[in-house]
Amino acid sequence: MSITIAYLGPPGTYAEAATLAYVRTLGKETGSEALLCPYPSIAQTLQSVAQGQVHLAVVPVENSIEGGVTITLDMLWQLNILQIQQALVLPIRHALLSWVSSLEAIQTVYSHPQALAQCQGWLETFLPSAQLVPTNSTTEPLQHLDKDVTAGVITSQRAAQLYNLPVLASAINDYPDNSTRFWVLGKQSSLGGSHTSLAFSLPANRPGALVKPLQVFASQGLNMSRIESRPTKRSLGEYLFFIDLEADATQVSVQAVFSELASHTEILKIFGSYSILTIDSSTVFED
Amino acid sequence: MSITIAYLGPPGTYAEAATLAYVRTLGKETGSEALLCPYPSIAQTLQSVAQGQVHLAVVPVENSIEGGVTITLDMLWQLNILQIQQALVLPIRHALLSWVSSLEAIQTVYSHPQALAQCQGWLETFLPSAQLVPTNSTTEPLQHLDKDVTAGVITSQRAAQLYNLPVLASAINDYPDNSTRFWVLGKQSSLGGSHTSLAFSLPANRPGALVKPLQVFASQGLNMSRIESRPTKRSLGEYLFFIDLEADATQVSVQAVFSELASHTEILKIFGSYSILTIDSSTVFED
Repeated sequence: MSITIAYLGPPGTYAEAATLAYVRTLGKETGSEALLCPYPSIAQTLQSVAQGQVHLAVVPVENSIEGGVTITLDMLWQLNILQIQQALVLPIRHALLSWVSSLEAIQTVYSHPQALAQCQGWLETFLPSAQLVPTNSTTEPLQHLDKDVTAGVITSQRAAQLYNLPVLASAINDYPDNSTRFWVLGKQSSLGGSHTSLAFSLPANRPGALVKPLQVFASQGLNMSRIESRPTKRSLGEYLFFIDLEADATQVSVQAVFSELASHTEILKIFGSYSILTIDSSTVFED
Repeated sequence: MSITIAYLGPPGTYAEAATLAYVRTLGKETGSEALLCPYPSIAQTLQSVAQGQVHLAVVPVENSIEGGVTITLDMLWQLNILQIQQALVLPIRHALLSWVSSLEAIQTVYSHPQALAQCQGWLETFLPSAQLVPTNSTTEPLQHLDKDVTAGVITSQRAAQLYNLPVLASAINDYPDNSTRFWVLGKQSSLGGSHTSLAFSLPANRPGALVKPLQVFASQGLNMSRIESRPTKRSLGEYLFFIDLEADATQVSVQAVFSELASHTEILKIFGSYSILTIDSSTVFED
């Protein structure tokens, strides 16, 4: 049987690179084949798996420089039927693609706002007068390169290879240790693993009440590897908290902690336990 | 003497509306006049005040639907010389501006990604096949309206009045209780007030160590009204925490809490104490 996997397309995006690396490990383990389905937005990628059009979806959760991907967190809370099957960590190396032969000729730079933000120091140094234009993905703006010879696009090395486009400058991200974490999401129960993700709102809608849930984790020796707040969208000053724990919710001892946690939270949602696959950059850039 | 104030322009943005409301109260209190200086990005707005080109800058910090404005938090930490003089809370009402007479004729909708996100439900219902194009501000794309008669722009009512443009649909934001908090920042010491903002990194770079600072606040009865994590940009999984407290750092008792806090944090930065001005929507939309 072949597995269908949704991702933020078109082909050449970092999401596709992460999905391909995941499929490679899946193939080794199960021998199953995968069909990759590109979607134009993260929202549509997540809806496709929630509605059963595909088996799995791969979406970005967090970048080491720009932080959380808020649409992913918000939709995971709202959809309320997806479980995390696996986390993937992908190294990010941005390249500037253009048909011009020197940087001086570039007048406009297109890319996803996160990619533009991750290269802002490089852009201020080498292209201080270029106009920066935000786009929906790092691959979508490649269509501008043929129409506008003074345009540049910040995207992945893989996109350059895939679409036969010239790389004018590579590894232009300001921070060399740039990586993005993705989640593989599906409707089946997660399989367990080293990390558990959950989210909750607080009974009094007072962020100060956050200390109690954190004390529960600390007293049980569970380390929190991430915390991120998101607005409840009801009123300014009311938040949901998304937390990653170094714990496996398939263990009875951890389930007992979550029962205690429930008494200090308003709504508590457990998104599953999973292992983390760190993707070797050489496998990505060879592809 | 006239005070110079930088904001994210061009005129017609929500940042300008917040700045005008602030200037009105300032005029009543001090009788001083203000000169508003529009800048093309939040980064340049903040740099202008840090470099002494203007006295103050007004920048968005958080929206009740879309959450924190990460560039503001990241730059406040990096610049390390700005203090919060005042917080402003502005109600947000998005309108769709266009020269067409009916929604069916709209093929493209331009706006800032935050505004597009805040109207995504409305857009899916009324303009399901329109192409959504992200821009740098809610005012910048107004130039497209004259060139492309099938275009619409999501922006403020005020922008419609200012540029004499027709409103095709108003109050189109998905959540009626939509408001944005701004900070007025300057290099002078803050004056004190009901709220204090601060940020810190943790000694072990383990988010689990966050429980200790929160216990300090809880044990001293200081309520936390907001917490937001941002990546340190050093490595995935290392965070800074931005916190708002209902406390006045000009009081000796609060200063004692911050001394205790310092022993549980790596780097601690206090951004000042200030009062919150809630702007009446009628004053904004009359303007």
